Amino acid sequence: MSDFKPKDPNFKSRVADSFHRQAVMRTIGAELTAVTPGRVAIGMSHAAELTQQHGFLHAGIVATALDSACGYAAFSLMPADAAVLTIEFKVNLLAPAEGKGFSFEAEVVKPGRTIMVSEGRAYCVDGGARKLLATMTATIMVVSNRAGLKG
Amino acid sequence: MSDFKPKDPNFKSRVADSFHRQAVMRTIGAELTAVTPGRVAIGMSHAAELTQQHGFLHAGIVATALDSACGYAAFSLMPADAAVLTIEFKVNLLAPAEGKGFSFEAEVVKPGRTIMVSEGRAYCVDGGARKLLATMTATIMVVSNRAGLKG
Amino acid sequence: MSDFKPKDPNFKSRVADSFHRQAVMRTIGAELTAVTPGRVAIGMSHAAELTQQHGFLHAGIVATALDSACGYAAFSLMPADAAVLTIEFKVNLLAPAEGKGFSFEAEVVKPGRTIMVSEGRAYCVDGGARKLLATMTATIMVVSNRAGLKG
Amino acid sequence: MSDFKPKDPNFKSRVADSFHRQAVMRTIGAELTAVTPGRVAIGMSHAAELTQQHGFLHAGIVATALDSACGYAAFSLMPADAAVLTIEFKVNLLAPAEGKGFSFEAEVVKPGRTIMVSEGRAYCVDGGARKLLATMTATIMVVSNRAGLKG
Repeated sequence: MSDFKPKDPNFKSRVADSFHRQAVMRTIGAELTAVTPGRVAIGMSHAAELTQQHGFLHAGIVATALDSACGYAAFSLMPADAAVLTIEFKVNLLAPAEGKGFSFEAEVVKPGRTIMVSEGRAYCVDGGARKLLATMTATIMVVSNRAGLKG
Repeated sequence: MSDFKPKDPNFKSRVADSFHRQAVMRTIGAELTAVTPGRVAIGMSHAAELTQQHGFLHAGIVATALDSACGYAAFSLMPADAAVLTIEFKVNLLAPAEGKGFSFEAEVVKPGRTIMVSEGRAYCVDGGARKLLATMTATIMVVSNRAGLKG
Repeated sequence: MSDFKPKDPNFKSRVADSFHRQAVMRTIGAELTAVTPGRVAIGMSHAAELTQQHGFLHAGIVATALDSACGYAAFSLMPADAAVLTIEFKVNLLAPAEGKGFSFEAEVVKPGRTIMVSEGRAYCVDGGARKLLATMTATIMVVSNRAGLKG
Repeated sequence: MSDFKPKDPNFKSRVADSFHRQAVMRTIGAELTAVTPGRVAIGMSHAAELTQQHGFLHAGIVATALDSACGYAAFSLMPADAAVLTIEFKVNLLAPAEGKGFSFEAEVVKPGRTIMVSEGRAYCVDGGARKLLATMTATIMVVSNRAGLKG
């Protein structure tokens, strides 16, 4: 675990602003629970309308929250005028996404100038117990000066 | 492109039944548009409440629909009593998910007894034009006789 | 399958030059068998010294040839002064890599300015029969003007 | 980081035996440097005959060593009569594979009965300094009672 130095001292509000412009985060009931340089956590509750056929949270919704966590972990280290774009991600589903709540936690492993790589972990949270349910590796592009893309 | 022989002659209704038990498909407005042996297509319209910060469909929602397409393509080839479980998937995001509608199309590349592999492609659809926006490779397990998992 | 227009009319010799500077290709006995715009094929024979514990070609050697095929498929579409760098790849191993010979075939699915995506397929080849043994998706960067990186 | 309990008390010699039957490990000069329950490390030196066009270790060779590390980390937790088979892996290449030596270190994140998931990290090692150059996530199958597959 490295200590990262953010290039933008206002990284927290910049991440929060962009997160709150992601309408899908509201739709799935996801909230930003922690933002530090190179690390972001997102929390959400179980919701029946987001389930797959066995009643578990759909893997794609797990991916949705993990992708935002990975992207914003990277975004927290970007210059103030950059936009964040996910190039690709891979998810391994390790256990059924069942439980009262979920935590999606990401950190940057490679803070490159053009390409960043983040790793995310999704946990089922039930009271004090946490169970690892999925991992993500995401490759993220630092987009500079591209018209129309803000944050 | 191979011709697949389904093990269950009722694969179409079995796929449709399971799909309709995925509450998240209703939530994102996704519909099953084609089911043939080893191939499934899902369609959906743009929805403002599923967007990321630039107004495009969130990559995780693209993954949600692609994962269901890949999983059901595999499920169409499984025996009648098997359940489908995604082990992992990888998505490459090739273009912004913008447009009026989207089509998510998957086909099985490896119809194994225990492990199947499907490939999916997501397209922006606008009138007659189609633009490739994402690809998925998904690894899927054929789950037999596991209590509590149906379809 | 798209028709690609190469930016460099000398793409064939540029690909071949770079391929032949990959010492590892000689070491594993791999040869360039086809180069067209956005597509590359590599062939090799079974070699006992490249096997894993069951006597099959090691998955990493399959990945080595597929990565070169994917990278050079992308490189064939790059400007004359660009270098090629693989950012990430994912391999699915569909069948044991057994047989007399192997063919590794890649094509570009997204010929971006900065990021390209290629897909590769590995086949066991035995006389006229071909069997799909692995798939790869690779994300490749177009590196311009970076000192010390040629081709 | 979990503490894993091996099912086979002879896991160390079982891993070493299988590793030494991988002819490709000898060919690339890789050695088993550590085996504990759920964790394996492999070391190797730079070798000119394994390089790509810029003189770095080819990404596929990095993948070869990481795949063996990930597979044997999983194998160390399997029952004595099981064979190990990689289903898929994904590699992110974070920095050029340059340096005198390399260390490939893997650990199991999901020790399932049928499916295991391992994560690997590759480092350039030069004297005391270590630099992260690549990450792998690998999905591995526990193969029981399959004729002809030993270890």
